[in-house]
Amino acid sequence: MSRVFSGIQPTGEPHIGNYFGAMRNYVTLGEQYGKDSIYCVVDLHALTNPAAFDPRLLARRTYEMALANFAVGLDPSRVVFFAQSHVPEHQELSWIFTNLTPVGELERMTQYKDKAGQLESVPAGLLMYPVLMAADILLYKADTVPVGEDQTQHIELTREIARRFNHTFGETFPEPKAVYNKDALRIPGVDGHGKMSKSKGENSTLGLLEDLGSIWQKLRVAPTDPARVRRTDPGNPDVCLIFDYHKLFSDLPTIEMVNVECRRAGIGCVDCKKRLMEGVTAALSPIQERAAELARNPDDIRDALAQGAKEARAIAAPVMEEVREKVGFLKL
Amino acid sequence: MSRVFSGIQPTGEPHIGNYFGAMRNYVTLGEQYGKDSIYCVVDLHALTNPAAFDPRLLARRTYEMALANFAVGLDPSRVVFFAQSHVPEHQELSWIFTNLTPVGELERMTQYKDKAGQLESVPAGLLMYPVLMAADILLYKADTVPVGEDQTQHIELTREIARRFNHTFGETFPEPKAVYNKDALRIPGVDGHGKMSKSKGENSTLGLLEDLGSIWQKLRVAPTDPARVRRTDPGNPDVCLIFDYHKLFSDLPTIEMVNVECRRAGIGCVDCKKRLMEGVTAALSPIQERAAELARNPDDIRDALAQGAKEARAIAAPVMEEVREKVGFLKL
Repeated sequence: MSRVFSGIQPTGEPHIGNYFGAMRNYVTLGEQYGKDSIYCVVDLHALTNPAAFDPRLLARRTYEMALANFAVGLDPSRVVFFAQSHVPEHQELSWIFTNLTPVGELERMTQYKDKAGQLESVPAGLLMYPVLMAADILLYKADTVPVGEDQTQHIELTREIARRFNHTFGETFPEPKAVYNKDALRIPGVDGHGKMSKSKGENSTLGLLEDLGSIWQKLRVAPTDPARVRRTDPGNPDVCLIFDYHKLFSDLPTIEMVNVECRRAGIGCVDCKKRLMEGVTAALSPIQERAAELARNPDDIRDALAQGAKEARAIAAPVMEEVREKVGFLKL
Repeated sequence: MSRVFSGIQPTGEPHIGNYFGAMRNYVTLGEQYGKDSIYCVVDLHALTNPAAFDPRLLARRTYEMALANFAVGLDPSRVVFFAQSHVPEHQELSWIFTNLTPVGELERMTQYKDKAGQLESVPAGLLMYPVLMAADILLYKADTVPVGEDQTQHIELTREIARRFNHTFGETFPEPKAVYNKDALRIPGVDGHGKMSKSKGENSTLGLLEDLGSIWQKLRVAPTDPARVRRTDPGNPDVCLIFDYHKLFSDLPTIEMVNVECRRAGIGCVDCKKRLMEGVTAALSPIQERAAELARNPDDIRDALAQGAKEARAIAAPVMEEVREKVGFLKL
């Protein structure tokens, strides 16, 4: 048996980088693994970031992240989809793992060093983040974890914690493997300043649920090949973020046309962007319509999350029972 | 309203140091505070000590610590008495507090520095110990915490965490106060090597439930005033651990008699120890009889712990609901 686990940060409205990098892959894996694909909006992890964490927004962001995933086609009745804070077994297992993890190993995590280095005072949550992440995964004995490459070290620590638990208390957990989505392209930000990222602000992102008029305004002023100054200059699609977007949103004939015509000044940047906008509209309209449809019944989203938490706890319960017995807690 | 919380380490059979230092006080506070006195066998904390923690013994030690407390007169139907691992809200709240506690503050804890300094590899549980302890106390909004003086710094951290939570999320927790039991005497080990302590082995301790014959063997060979070599030499009770024990176990006339007669060689050490043994027998026999009685029905102990966990969770539930809402988790 194989089981997929993935954690989803409740970072507010997802952008097309999230969509092509992760969400689309969740739908595919969900169709493949069914109830053995477990998706968790990690609102407990969200607390580790004191800058991003806002108690007035956390609930809304959790809700919106569920809605967005359902809107792109993830069917909560066919996978297990829930919010981390509704399954307290995550923290329960995390405490046990905390006792199996040396402080030194946590201090050596690259992400910790990067983030801690920017802070005056470092909350212990930042240090303990990868232990909770190990609990997230192993609570379901998941063996397959779709992640970004920045999570490689955390997955290795998860494997180490699994090995250490198995060694100390007897064979219990699999050693999960990271799977990197080959489609997780490095999608450029629409402002032309590197990768599309929420942390760079709204000028960088194209929101999955963003008003199409607003998306067009961003595309309209987006930088293209800087060497193409006049309409009559030939352009180079290889250095143009609009061409990168075409590869995501347009059909093959359009991509091929742009690739040829840009290089010989056969198409201008504005027309090229208009063609792109057609593809963007075709891709995002049905998602945005489903999102609007879902938003009309917020209780359905909440019900789906409640049902997901129930299903998650049903999987977690026998694992925690096994863990409690092996660790030696008194059974009542 | 005032509420007492105290954590009890499941360190195996308690000794008379534990009895006079803490357990007897729990009975008194229990009579005073009733269901607002909350006693928790901290089996989750036991994991933080990799040397002492043995999965084959943890359940038994938890059970025995409950039994011993009930045997000395703590009535589980009149207080709240349970094992920490049966109330997962402890870890739930602990994770939230982890995000409010700077790593640097935890590294500065004296107990952490002492313990970590002796280890090749330091488990993160040791670092996070005081955060879980803060959660233990604040989960019940307890304001009164009977502890040993070695816990002063941890209680101060608990107050700091309460302040920080209140400041960040709005007034929620009281700032608990440590109360030091005035009777918590520094009871000497029967081997004459400093304070009575489990960690020094059985030669140091007189077990509360130890066979009286075994206790007598230890007292018989216990060191007395080293200057009193012959029976006819006068002794000095002020430097004699047997006299310290008399002060715990004997009645006032006996204590006064020993104080006088020892100094003028009117009583020999063996007779003095025999008189002490009478007091020890009078104090421990009824406790040991109750313990034997309780041990005949282990299910009663388990039932009492199950009932205690239920009562603890009933107190914790509205606190956690308040915390979850203030932190901003999505409510289903």
